Amino acid sequence: MSDIAVQSETPVNPLEELGNILDSDMRAVNTLILKYMDSPVKLIPQLASYLIAAGGKRIRPLLTLASTAIYEGDMTRAHRLAASVEFIHTATLLHDDVVDGSEERRGQDAANLVFGNQASVLVGDFLFSRAFQLMTEDGSLDVLRILSNASAIIAEGEVMQLTTANNLSTTMDEYLQVIEAKTAALFAAACEVGPIIAGADTAQAKAMADYGLNMGIAFQIADDTLDYMAQREKLGKTIGDDFREGKITAPVLFALAKADDQERKFWHRTLVDLNQNDDDLQEACTTIKKHNAIESCSNLAMTYKCKAIEALRLAPETKLRNLLEELTDYTITRKF
Amino acid sequence: MSDIAVQSETPVNPLEELGNILDSDMRAVNTLILKYMDSPVKLIPQLASYLIAAGGKRIRPLLTLASTAIYEGDMTRAHRLAASVEFIHTATLLHDDVVDGSEERRGQDAANLVFGNQASVLVGDFLFSRAFQLMTEDGSLDVLRILSNASAIIAEGEVMQLTTANNLSTTMDEYLQVIEAKTAALFAAACEVGPIIAGADTAQAKAMADYGLNMGIAFQIADDTLDYMAQREKLGKTIGDDFREGKITAPVLFALAKADDQERKFWHRTLVDLNQNDDDLQEACTTIKKHNAIESCSNLAMTYKCKAIEALRLAPETKLRNLLEELTDYTITRKF
Repeated sequence: MSDIAVQSETPVNPLEELGNILDSDMRAVNTLILKYMDSPVKLIPQLASYLIAAGGKRIRPLLTLASTAIYEGDMTRAHRLAASVEFIHTATLLHDDVVDGSEERRGQDAANLVFGNQASVLVGDFLFSRAFQLMTEDGSLDVLRILSNASAIIAEGEVMQLTTANNLSTTMDEYLQVIEAKTAALFAAACEVGPIIAGADTAQAKAMADYGLNMGIAFQIADDTLDYMAQREKLGKTIGDDFREGKITAPVLFALAKADDQERKFWHRTLVDLNQNDDDLQEACTTIKKHNAIESCSNLAMTYKCKAIEALRLAPETKLRNLLEELTDYTITRKF
Repeated sequence: MSDIAVQSETPVNPLEELGNILDSDMRAVNTLILKYMDSPVKLIPQLASYLIAAGGKRIRPLLTLASTAIYEGDMTRAHRLAASVEFIHTATLLHDDVVDGSEERRGQDAANLVFGNQASVLVGDFLFSRAFQLMTEDGSLDVLRILSNASAIIAEGEVMQLTTANNLSTTMDEYLQVIEAKTAALFAAACEVGPIIAGADTAQAKAMADYGLNMGIAFQIADDTLDYMAQREKLGKTIGDDFREGKITAPVLFALAKADDQERKFWHRTLVDLNQNDDDLQEACTTIKKHNAIESCSNLAMTYKCKAIEALRLAPETKLRNLLEELTDYTITRKF
């Protein structure tokens, strides 16, 4: 794919720039999303559009589109598979919010609060089925294998996360296993699909999958770190979701490793017993900062970012590849 | 497939006889089920085996095995697809129990009570993904199309059921749409898969799908009727689950059609307002009996039974076909 000049007055971030370059493709993906989330049972499109229309970064379908375009694959096929990837993601969000008892998602009340847990579970199942209908229409068994494997791994990661929550003896290795499964596996699959449908060789597909996997791990570490960055509250962002649920994430693990007795008692009370008062989140943020845990997280994310960029070297050098490279930086330095 | 002599001292029902004839195949299916529900995340096989080991009639995988054997298809492929069908069914049971807040399933505490709603949702997702991994391994896009369509229809039916629950203006037609989608679609798919992998012609595949669809509708009408048959309590069976949830099912619809003002108030209080006292289930059963609603349900189920048998006529005449025919009778006359 040749470079495409982007007409832009103001500097845009790599995610926006990907969105600009792939704008007509993303429109086609959105049209498919609207078509496939429709149903004579009107509660389904109501609930699905509530979540999907609320936006989100659309990073996963963009990865599928970009990874197909880089290898000059058939973009019509990429549209279907990007929609499929977004449906899998949306289904997991709906189920996650039920599982976590979430109150907010994408800056609005979570779907389970508005439509109930029952509808959220079932519409998630519907979108998941739609994802497989889209893949079946595409007809590539390789793609079906990649995305059904990823779906099983995501569910495994989510269950593993349940077993590590409220458990202070969770190791960094276990945490990394969880985020690799629950987040990075779908990033990897979204990226691998491109070279696969473009008929690129196995090494190229593996390289793109490695890029996605490592980018996904870096992305989730950054996400988990942002949840303890008190200054985000000034931007109107909610923090502390993981804290309230007692999830054991990277910033907590780094702080725990340096915790004295009193701090261990604090983490035990707040994350294991979930006995939390109003000042506890602030104290958690302060303790995490004191032990340089934010910096440690940043360094950890950086190592995965480097692996992602390393994997990307094998891909054809195009404007889009450069943007995917920049995206890794953006992913771990974003403040929202 | 030639007839197989069954050595049996005591008369067995057609479901047991199918199980006897297909015993070695069902063992192969069970081995696959155990293999594919395994995971390094031990909560997954724990929860899945809790439900799967509790038994259940295994009617859906038996339908896939029988419909393949009738057309002399590859039984090794049938094993995989029967396991896939059972995984889809198990996933929907896990999600249903969360949605319904069920307390009991297959004679034991429901999985959501033992392992929590969170784990039930996520293990359901895992089994659903495994179903698609099994289908992908089989490699038939026709099968993938049939079963991904069925999965989407099941979810649609479940959501539609949410919107008809507690709604006395639900029509018989809407009720039939719900049960066709939530139950019969998977029966149809389970039966259609056989002739498809055996390479039978379209008419044969359609006939088996029609058999499954109509059998599934009859099966669900019978199931919904049994929930109001007070005499089952003497057999140690729970009744009244649908009543307690305010589901609008065939026996209620027939009784409603003949209800006087006082009865309409009763149904409104109990099924719409869910304001129920200890004697209400007994009164519901009495009212249903008074209006001959059980008989009306039986007649309704009978019409679908006849359609099922009619569809089956096109299939090759074998012992297994005869058993499938007998199964329709058994399905609507069973007392448990």
